[in-house]
Amino acid sequence: MLVGSRSDLELAEKVRERLTEFRVPCDVQVASAHRNPDKVDRIVRDPETDVFVAMAGLSAALPGVVAARTLKPVIGVPLYRGLGLDSLLSVVQMPPGIPVAAVGLDAAENAALLATEMLALKYPKLNSALEKYRARWREEPSAGGGPAP
Amino acid sequence: MLVGSRSDLELAEKVRERLTEFRVPCDVQVASAHRNPDKVDRIVRDPETDVFVAMAGLSAALPGVVAARTLKPVIGVPLYRGLGLDSLLSVVQMPPGIPVAAVGLDAAENAALLATEMLALKYPKLNSALEKYRARWREEPSAGGGPAP
Amino acid sequence: MLVGSRSDLELAEKVRERLTEFRVPCDVQVASAHRNPDKVDRIVRDPETDVFVAMAGLSAALPGVVAARTLKPVIGVPLYRGLGLDSLLSVVQMPPGIPVAAVGLDAAENAALLATEMLALKYPKLNSALEKYRARWREEPSAGGGPAP
Amino acid sequence: MLVGSRSDLELAEKVRERLTEFRVPCDVQVASAHRNPDKVDRIVRDPETDVFVAMAGLSAALPGVVAARTLKPVIGVPLYRGLGLDSLLSVVQMPPGIPVAAVGLDAAENAALLATEMLALKYPKLNSALEKYRARWREEPSAGGGPAP
Amino acid sequence: MLVGSRSDLELAEKVRERLTEFRVPCDVQVASAHRNPDKVDRIVRDPETDVFVAMAGLSAALPGVVAARTLKPVIGVPLYRGLGLDSLLSVVQMPPGIPVAAVGLDAAENAALLATEMLALKYPKLNSALEKYRARWREEPSAGGGPAP
Amino acid sequence: MLVGSRSDLELAEKVRERLTEFRVPCDVQVASAHRNPDKVDRIVRDPETDVFVAMAGLSAALPGVVAARTLKPVIGVPLYRGLGLDSLLSVVQMPPGIPVAAVGLDAAENAALLATEMLALKYPKLNSALEKYRARWREEPSAGGGPAP
Amino acid sequence: MLVGSRSDLELAEKVRERLTEFRVPCDVQVASAHRNPDKVDRIVRDPETDVFVAMAGLSAALPGVVAARTLKPVIGVPLYRGLGLDSLLSVVQMPPGIPVAAVGLDAAENAALLATEMLALKYPKLNSALEKYRARWREEPSAGGGPAP
Amino acid sequence: MLVGSRSDLELAEKVRERLTEFRVPCDVQVASAHRNPDKVDRIVRDPETDVFVAMAGLSAALPGVVAARTLKPVIGVPLYRGLGLDSLLSVVQMPPGIPVAAVGLDAAENAALLATEMLALKYPKLNSALEKYRARWREEPSAGGGPAP
Repeated sequence: MLVGSRSDLELAEKVRERLTEFRVPCDVQVASAHRNPDKVDRIVRDPETDVFVAMAGLSAALPGVVAARTLKPVIGVPLYRGLGLDSLLSVVQMPPGIPVAAVGLDAAENAALLATEMLALKYPKLNSALEKYRARWREEPSAGGGPAP
Repeated sequence: MLVGSRSDLELAEKVRERLTEFRVPCDVQVASAHRNPDKVDRIVRDPETDVFVAMAGLSAALPGVVAARTLKPVIGVPLYRGLGLDSLLSVVQMPPGIPVAAVGLDAAENAALLATEMLALKYPKLNSALEKYRARWREEPSAGGGPAP
Repeated sequence: MLVGSRSDLELAEKVRERLTEFRVPCDVQVASAHRNPDKVDRIVRDPETDVFVAMAGLSAALPGVVAARTLKPVIGVPLYRGLGLDSLLSVVQMPPGIPVAAVGLDAAENAALLATEMLALKYPKLNSALEKYRARWREEPSAGGGPAP
Repeated sequence: MLVGSRSDLELAEKVRERLTEFRVPCDVQVASAHRNPDKVDRIVRDPETDVFVAMAGLSAALPGVVAARTLKPVIGVPLYRGLGLDSLLSVVQMPPGIPVAAVGLDAAENAALLATEMLALKYPKLNSALEKYRARWREEPSAGGGPAP
Repeated sequence: MLVGSRSDLELAEKVRERLTEFRVPCDVQVASAHRNPDKVDRIVRDPETDVFVAMAGLSAALPGVVAARTLKPVIGVPLYRGLGLDSLLSVVQMPPGIPVAAVGLDAAENAALLATEMLALKYPKLNSALEKYRARWREEPSAGGGPAP
Repeated sequence: MLVGSRSDLELAEKVRERLTEFRVPCDVQVASAHRNPDKVDRIVRDPETDVFVAMAGLSAALPGVVAARTLKPVIGVPLYRGLGLDSLLSVVQMPPGIPVAAVGLDAAENAALLATEMLALKYPKLNSALEKYRARWREEPSAGGGPAP
Repeated sequence: MLVGSRSDLELAEKVRERLTEFRVPCDVQVASAHRNPDKVDRIVRDPETDVFVAMAGLSAALPGVVAARTLKPVIGVPLYRGLGLDSLLSVVQMPPGIPVAAVGLDAAENAALLATEMLALKYPKLNSALEKYRARWREEPSAGGGPAP
Repeated sequence: MLVGSRSDLELAEKVRERLTEFRVPCDVQVASAHRNPDKVDRIVRDPETDVFVAMAGLSAALPGVVAARTLKPVIGVPLYRGLGLDSLLSVVQMPPGIPVAAVGLDAAENAALLATEMLALKYPKLNSALEKYRARWREEPSAGGGPAP
C-alpha cells in the first residue's frame, strides 16, 4: 500500500488494521508519485505484491502512476483535502489503458475490503473471513464503519 | 456483466469485445437494480462468476446493489447521461462495507482491463495477454482507446 | 420510516416528533439498502404502511431500493455527509419507473410535512393539523424550523 | 399540473399521457410563479385538485410558490435549461415549512408515477393500474422510459 | 429590505448600518416569499420604497418573488446556508422578464453600496457619501470590508 | 454598455433592442478590461452615462473593473462560454467595496430591464414603458423571452 | 511541448504556430505520463529545453509528471474532454513541491504566450515580439483569439 | 508580489520566506485590482521586477489585471475564501491574450517555486538552490510542505 505523504498515514493505518484482521499481509509505504518516482517504481515491481492500494489528495496522481507501472489491480483512494472533488475526479477519471479501481473519498474501509475480495480470487480461504465480516456487518448498522472485531 | 438498461448495451459491447480479445468468457445481462432485483440476485449468485461489471446512469444504484449481494469484486461504470456528476458520485461514494471499484464515466475499456487484472490473480495465464496489450498500448498513443487488435 | 444507519437516527427522530405532533403513527427502523435487503423487503411489504420515508447519505441508494419494492409513495431525504451533492444527486436523479419524492439535504421537517400532506389525501382529518401548523408557521418566521408546539 | 412557460408544454404532455393511461384526470396550465401569481393562486385554490405537479427551469420558483399556497402535495420537476444544477437545486433545497417532492431533471415519467402513487392512497382502484405498469416495466428494460401501452 | 427568516437578521443589520452611514433611510422586515406572501405584497407595494434588498438562503425565492411584484430594482443577496451554490444559483439564474440584481454570497456590504448607487441616480447628494466611502476604501486595504466610520 | 469582445456583440444587440424599445439611449462599445483599460477608463468616465452594462465570459473581469472605476450602478452579464460556472462566479462573487449587479448567464433581457428599472428612479416617465412591458409579459407566457413589440 | 495523446495534436499545433510566429523554436512530442514514462523522462532531460508545455485531458497527470522530473518551468494545459472540471482540477491542484503553471481549458494561445514571457527573461530580444503582439492585440478585439499575423 | 487585501498577507509571507531561502529578493505589496489600480500600475511598471505573483480570493481579478499590464510572467494564486471554486476558476480561466500561470488554492509554496524556476532561466545560479530544495524534498515526504531549512 502506498500513500503519497506522511500526513496520510492515519488513513492507511485503518486500511492496514482491517487487512490484518483478515490476515492479509500488507506493507505501508510513503512514496509520492512526484517525489519518489524511483521508489514507487521499486515498490511497484515487487513480484510478491498482488494488489496495490494508493492514496492521495489534491491532484491525486499516485494511483495512476502505479497503475501505469503494473498489471496488478490498483485501488485508488482519493483523500478529502482541498475541494474533495479534485482528488475524487483525479483518481476516477483515468484515461483508457490504465485502469484504477476508485473507492470513495477517504474510504479506507472499502479499499481494504475491495483488496481482500480481489485477493480471495487467488486465495479462496480469504472467503470465510469476508463472509464473517459481512455477516457481522449485516447485523450491526453502526455509524459509517464495519463491525468491531 | 450487468447493465441497467438496454440503451446501455453498446458500451457493454465494448467491454465484451476487449474481454473476448483477452479470451475472458463473459456474459452480458440487462437487469436493473430496481426493475429486476430477483434477476440481479440470480445473476449475482452464479458461483461461476469471478468478477462483476455493473454499468448504470443517473442515480446509478446497480453497482452497489450487486456489491451488497456478493463478495466477489464489483466494478462500477458510471454512464454519462444526466449531469455526469450524478452517476459518477453515485457509483464512487459507496458507504463503508460494500466496496465498488469505480472506473471513469463511460470507461468501458478500463472496466475490461481492470476485470482482467483481477482475474489474472487467479488465472495467471491472462498475464501474457495483459502484457501484450500494454506493450502495444505503449507504442500507439492513439486517441482515447487501446490498440487495434 | 427507514434510515440507513444508526448514526442517522437523530434526524429520523425529528421526523418522528413532527409526525407525532400530527398524530401520524410512525415507526423508525434502521435498515440499509445494502446491509439488510431482506429486512428492507419485510418492512416495505407491510401492508399497513401508507408512505415511506427513507434517509441515507453518500451514494444514497435506500430511497430507490424502497421505491422499487413498493407502489406506495417514497420520500427520500439525502443526508449531508461527504460532499452533499453526492447524496442529493443520488436521491433525486432516479431512473424512470421508480419515483422518489426527494426533499432537501437533511430536510427532516419537510419530509414529515410532505408525508402528512400525502396521508391527508386518505385521512382528511389530518388537514386541520396541517392547517394549524401552517397558520402558526406563517406567524413565526423563526430560524430554519417550524413553530414550537 | 402547472408549467412555468409554454416552452415546457412538451414535457407536461408526457406527464399527461401517462396519467391518462392511468385514467387520472389532469389539467395542464401554463402559469408562471412570477408572471401570473394570481392565476397560480386561482389554480392552487381549486378544491378539486388532490396533487399538484409544477415544472420550471433556471431558478425554478414555481414548485415552491405552489407549495406555499396549498397543503396538497406538490411535485416539483426541475427542467434542464441553463446549467441543470440551477433548477435542480432550486426545486429540491426548499426551506423548512413548505415541502416540495422533487423528482429528477426533466423526469416527466416519474412525476406522473409519483402523483398516481399519492392519489392511490385516496383512490385505491388506481393500485391495479400501478401494478400493471410496474409488472410491464419489470419485463421491459427499455431505454429510459416506461413500457409501451 | 426584506429577509426571509429571523436568523438572517444579523446580515441585514450590516446592510442597514452601511445605509445609515450613507443617511439612506431603510427598513428591515422579516417576510418570507413562502410564509407571508401577503406581507411581502404589502411591503412591495409601498410607493415610498425606491429599491428593494431581499436576502434568502437555500432555494432562495424571495428576491424573485419581490422582483415579480414591483418595477423597482431588486437586489438579491444569496445566503450561504446549505451548499452555497444552491442559493447563489437560485438568486442569479432568474427567468427573463423579472430581473434581480444579484450580489455575492452573504455580500451585505455590496448590497448596501449597490442600493446607494441606484438611489444616487435619483438623489444626487448621495454621491458625495459614495465618493467619501470609495476614497477611504482605496486607502484602507483592510480585510474583506469597507472603511471604519 | 461594454462587451469584452466582438464575439459578444450579438447578445449586446439584444440588450440594445430592448432598451431602444424603452427609448433608453444606449451605446455599445467593445472594450476589454484587459485589452483596453484606457478605453474602458474613458468610457467609464463619461458623465452622461447613468448605468453601465458589462458582459464577459470565462474569468469575467470586465464588470468588476468598470465597477471599480465608477460610482454608477454596474450590471454584469456573465456569458456562457467555457464551463458556465466560471463567468457566473467571476461576475457575482465580487469582493466587498465594488458592487456588481449580476444577472444570469447570457441574460440580455434581464440586463436591459434592470437597467431601465434603475433609470426609472431618475426618469420617472420610463415607468409607463416598464408597466406596459410587464402587462404584456404577464399575458404572454412565451418561451424564455419578453413580449413581441 | 508534450501532449498526452495523438488526438490532442490539433491544439498543440496552435501553440506551435504562435511560438513560431515569435521565432521560439519548439518541438511537439506525443508522450503520455502513463504510456511512455521513459519517453517522457528522455524528453524532460533534454538540457536544451527551457520551458515545457504539457497538455492532457481527464485525470491530467502529464503536467505534474513532467514537473516532478525537471526544475524548468512547466506549463499545464487542461483539455476539455470529460467534465472539464476533471482535467482543470487535476492540472491546477498540484501538491506542494512540484509547481505547474496552469492555464485555462484548451488555452493554447495563453500557453504559448506564457512560455514566451518566461523565455524572454533569458532571451530579451523576445520582448519586442511580445510587445508587437500585445499592441496588435489591444487594437483588435477579435473573438477569443490573438491578432492575425 | 501583490496581494489584494491585508488579510492575505499571511500566505504572502510564506511565499516570501521560501523565496528568501532561495535568495530571491522579493517585495510584498498590498494593492487591489479594484481598490488601487494606479498603485497596481505603478508596481507593475517597475522595470526591476522579473516575475509577478498575485494572490486574490472570490472573483480574483488581480492576477489578470497585472497580466494585462505587463509582459513579464504573472503567477496567480487563488485564495480559498468563499466557495473555493470561485477564485480558482477566476484565476485559471483567463481569456486569450493575457496568460496567467495559475497554481492551486492557497498554494504559496508552489508559487514561490514556480517563480524561482522562471527566474533561474535568467539567473542560472538559482538552479543549485532549486536542486538542493528538490533533493531534500524527495527525501522528506512531510505533510503538505517543503523541507525544513
